[in-house]
Amino acid sequence: MKSDIQIAQASEMKEITEIAAQLGLSEDDLKLFGKYKAKVNLDVLKRLPEKEDSKLVLVTAITPTRAGEGKTTTTVGLGQALNRIGKNAVIALREPSLGPTMGIKGGAAGGGYSQVVPMEDINLHFTGDIHAIGVAHNLLSAVIDNHIKQGNELNIDPTRVTFKRALDMNDRALRNTVVGLGGTINGQPREDGFLITVASEVMAILCLANDLMELKEKLGKIVVAYTYEGKSITAHDLKVEGAMTALLKDAIKPNLVQTLENTPAFIHGGPFANIAHGCNSVMATKLAMKLADITITEAGFGADLGAEKFYNIKSRYADLNPDATVIVATIRALKMHGGVDIDNLKEENLSALKKGMANLEKHIENVAKFGVPAVVAINRFPDDTEAEIELIKKECHKLGVKTALSEVWSKGGEGGEELANKLLDILENEKSQFKFLYQTDSPIKEKIETIAREIYGAEGVEYSDKALNQIDKYREEGYSDLPICMAKTSSSISDNPALKGRPTGFKISINEINLSAGAGFLVVMTGPVLTMPGLPKRPSSEDIDIDADGKITGLF
Amino acid sequence: MKSDIQIAQASEMKEITEIAAQLGLSEDDLKLFGKYKAKVNLDVLKRLPEKEDSKLVLVTAITPTRAGEGKTTTTVGLGQALNRIGKNAVIALREPSLGPTMGIKGGAAGGGYSQVVPMEDINLHFTGDIHAIGVAHNLLSAVIDNHIKQGNELNIDPTRVTFKRALDMNDRALRNTVVGLGGTINGQPREDGFLITVASEVMAILCLANDLMELKEKLGKIVVAYTYEGKSITAHDLKVEGAMTALLKDAIKPNLVQTLENTPAFIHGGPFANIAHGCNSVMATKLAMKLADITITEAGFGADLGAEKFYNIKSRYADLNPDATVIVATIRALKMHGGVDIDNLKEENLSALKKGMANLEKHIENVAKFGVPAVVAINRFPDDTEAEIELIKKECHKLGVKTALSEVWSKGGEGGEELANKLLDILENEKSQFKFLYQTDSPIKEKIETIAREIYGAEGVEYSDKALNQIDKYREEGYSDLPICMAKTSSSISDNPALKGRPTGFKISINEINLSAGAGFLVVMTGPVLTMPGLPKRPSSEDIDIDADGKITGLF
Repeated sequence: MKSDIQIAQASEMKEITEIAAQLGLSEDDLKLFGKYKAKVNLDVLKRLPEKEDSKLVLVTAITPTRAGEGKTTTTVGLGQALNRIGKNAVIALREPSLGPTMGIKGGAAGGGYSQVVPMEDINLHFTGDIHAIGVAHNLLSAVIDNHIKQGNELNIDPTRVTFKRALDMNDRALRNTVVGLGGTINGQPREDGFLITVASEVMAILCLANDLMELKEKLGKIVVAYTYEGKSITAHDLKVEGAMTALLKDAIKPNLVQTLENTPAFIHGGPFANIAHGCNSVMATKLAMKLADITITEAGFGADLGAEKFYNIKSRYADLNPDATVIVATIRALKMHGGVDIDNLKEENLSALKKGMANLEKHIENVAKFGVPAVVAINRFPDDTEAEIELIKKECHKLGVKTALSEVWSKGGEGGEELANKLLDILENEKSQFKFLYQTDSPIKEKIETIAREIYGAEGVEYSDKALNQIDKYREEGYSDLPICMAKTSSSISDNPALKGRPTGFKISINEINLSAGAGFLVVMTGPVLTMPGLPKRPSSEDIDIDADGKITGLF
Repeated sequence: MKSDIQIAQASEMKEITEIAAQLGLSEDDLKLFGKYKAKVNLDVLKRLPEKEDSKLVLVTAITPTRAGEGKTTTTVGLGQALNRIGKNAVIALREPSLGPTMGIKGGAAGGGYSQVVPMEDINLHFTGDIHAIGVAHNLLSAVIDNHIKQGNELNIDPTRVTFKRALDMNDRALRNTVVGLGGTINGQPREDGFLITVASEVMAILCLANDLMELKEKLGKIVVAYTYEGKSITAHDLKVEGAMTALLKDAIKPNLVQTLENTPAFIHGGPFANIAHGCNSVMATKLAMKLADITITEAGFGADLGAEKFYNIKSRYADLNPDATVIVATIRALKMHGGVDIDNLKEENLSALKKGMANLEKHIENVAKFGVPAVVAINRFPDDTEAEIELIKKECHKLGVKTALSEVWSKGGEGGEELANKLLDILENEKSQFKFLYQTDSPIKEKIETIAREIYGAEGVEYSDKALNQIDKYREEGYSDLPICMAKTSSSISDNPALKGRPTGFKISINEINLSAGAGFLVVMTGPVLTMPGLPKRPSSEDIDIDADGKITGLF
């Protein structure tokens, strides 16, 4: 069997100017990065004639397990399938972080015959967006410490600098550091740490900005530290948002690539799905919607996190009205939710599948709460039995939701035609009644509790004293009207990763609430979140190599 | 008077495909980065028909002062002038680091009417080379700490990790750090620090590699740490050079841009001129020499550092035979060498100028020791008087060296025609007898002392005990046959920055000797070298801004 990189390297890419031409874009609309990648100039959005925005479809998933669910692969395959059957569909995905590529094998550009290409480039530096974000982030960090060192006019308390540094690498040794050592000429020693760049608030901001000037405004709002008196200090106070925006002048432009079947794909922005909202950029989604008849996008983790944030945060800030949702499920993963061990997934197990269906059921219910019609994509694996497939279809039918078998991993777009047709049926016949789950002017606790009860099925919320104090503080400072960004385990609908399926009878515990004033949300922490991954004992960097002709091997 | 960025933004650039076509390159030879930047594919070097390599001209300078000497501006202007008079000349420059751009105003892309463009891009992310180098560097760092944390099979002593981390930012708080804090799961605490990325050995290697496979081989040779038994550990021992090279697959390709007068310019690689060799990449120089009839390149700092390393290190590893040298001098700077304060440079001062001429004289002598003919470029400033110009010409004439007035800053190529014609005269009539100053198989101390006596005019060399121990150790380990890379103040020909002009009666003190086994040289430290700059009290990031149309202001 061919590996993903072998399939990708054997693909026949069209020149990106040709892909762009399909969308009505000329070479003057593009900034080329070689023959197969391009950024699209922002004035295209203004220049394009008035046209009804495309339909917008979110691909989300059941609660992820180690068995894999294939959300990105389904997104890519669905886009390919829609184009196969004559529709003008465009894909909008997140761009992968380079760091994890060096850790554990596995790309973030789809898989099998549903990938975006050139996959080596997309998984390595791509068009440099994440590097630009890292530099803009670290400029702000350098300016903070420089300010403290050069007289500290703003009276920043060095023990209360909340803005860490960033690096695009899996490097656990940088999680907790002391900086500024070496005596007076080297600054003020203080505790610090590094995030992986995609966890930077700058990334979240880039992804939520509607244009370049809004980007600058939001960057200026980042709260980086507190004074000795407890007053918040922003990037704007340090006069650095202009330079940060200049550094991001190209990074904000959406990147255009293609799938293995030459379907246009925007891959742009990739914020964390826990401490941030986990969706590709607003600019890319909007551009896709201007150019396509159907835009297919995705969001991180399961629907309790990704879809909830896509609706409540991204759609709110970008004024989007999602038309349909695809919920990706696999029989393997549902059996794990039903209690089966990962080593026994090959055996048919209808009772475990039925039990695990409760997880899918909850996500179906949740999507319905936003007023968006849904279809379940059963991402087929070789060991799935007919009886298992029948069972999942029957259970979904009882819930009044359509299902479609998807075989896009092994068959590409052809394997997604059933899903594409079911989706078209929804888009033509079921009108979305999209609504937010909460209003932002509700009290902070009410917003949190709405998500906890409605989406997670919790019986209530317990707050640490720290969290309660923070709620008071944010209210006083005028930050209480922000949407909520939940940072919760992705392995359970609850905040306990061990609880599979559809947990009940639990409460959500809130440890602390962090402010992302630039991105525009309050990050509600239900437990520790790792914002800097580590490398495994045998990192995949040991396998990655390149030959004299520049051909990369061992990437996946 | 227009600022550099205003002049640059008003320039009429040709599309880079057109510039490439002038050189005989087709679009298939390029990887475009928008319309005005491109990387040139490496197979061009193999594909090109056998042709005599171009003449190779190094632009170097007197000992730098705060009055400025204009080496890069002269290089660009000379290239423009040669093209004006019908010659096929190509420029090869270093690429600037982004970090310093955020600190003190002043670009690294020439000045006035002798600049390379697009200057904003060149001074910000350019084509991402330095970002790629940073990631490759930090991958190696992460792998080192991960190895220690995951069992430490190689028995690395955490107190003897010599390979620091890297970031492309002026950030003094990162000079001295402690990493790996936070308990067992976060690793092993140890002292560490960050270099600015251009100070990375990975940068020096990229610039000295003759092809992709040599790049990989040299990366594998980087010595990163020592075991508890004192054995050196390399990147190859950590199996990471393949992944590092994969990360550099595009960064190794030379970048093609143009000057304000559409002269082709390769801007590629930018290693430090103290702890590294301070020249643009070998790949770019060789490519320029394949495509041009005359290649104009430059090297960092004054001729005692930049030219010495260009001849003894770069030319050796790349098998180059330089044909001529341009030594840039300004009357202002020579008056400073003659004792005039920076505030009094506008006044005519013939006696100070005559005294300061000793500095130029020594550099002229030094260049002659390599067997390369030279011309002195007098970079004219508005306050220079006729008498001063006459004096410098007369003194140079006595030394048997040609001079030319250069006004490329204010007049572009037209202002460099005299220099261009003098240079052509040399290239046609004076045969270079290029030779190295020392043989690499000489003992380490002999090589150091040759440079100190012959180039600096020192009476001898004094070694610290540490340096003497290191010399013994490197000899035992088989590293004694490497060329020498002197890390010395750039403000004096001696190792004492206060000694202007042509110092005499001094000895050079060697503190320590560091090994750059990958780049292939021994770094001889004559004093502390700052490898991570800081920001000033009012960083230029406060002035940099961007408007809604994406136009950058305040960059310089």
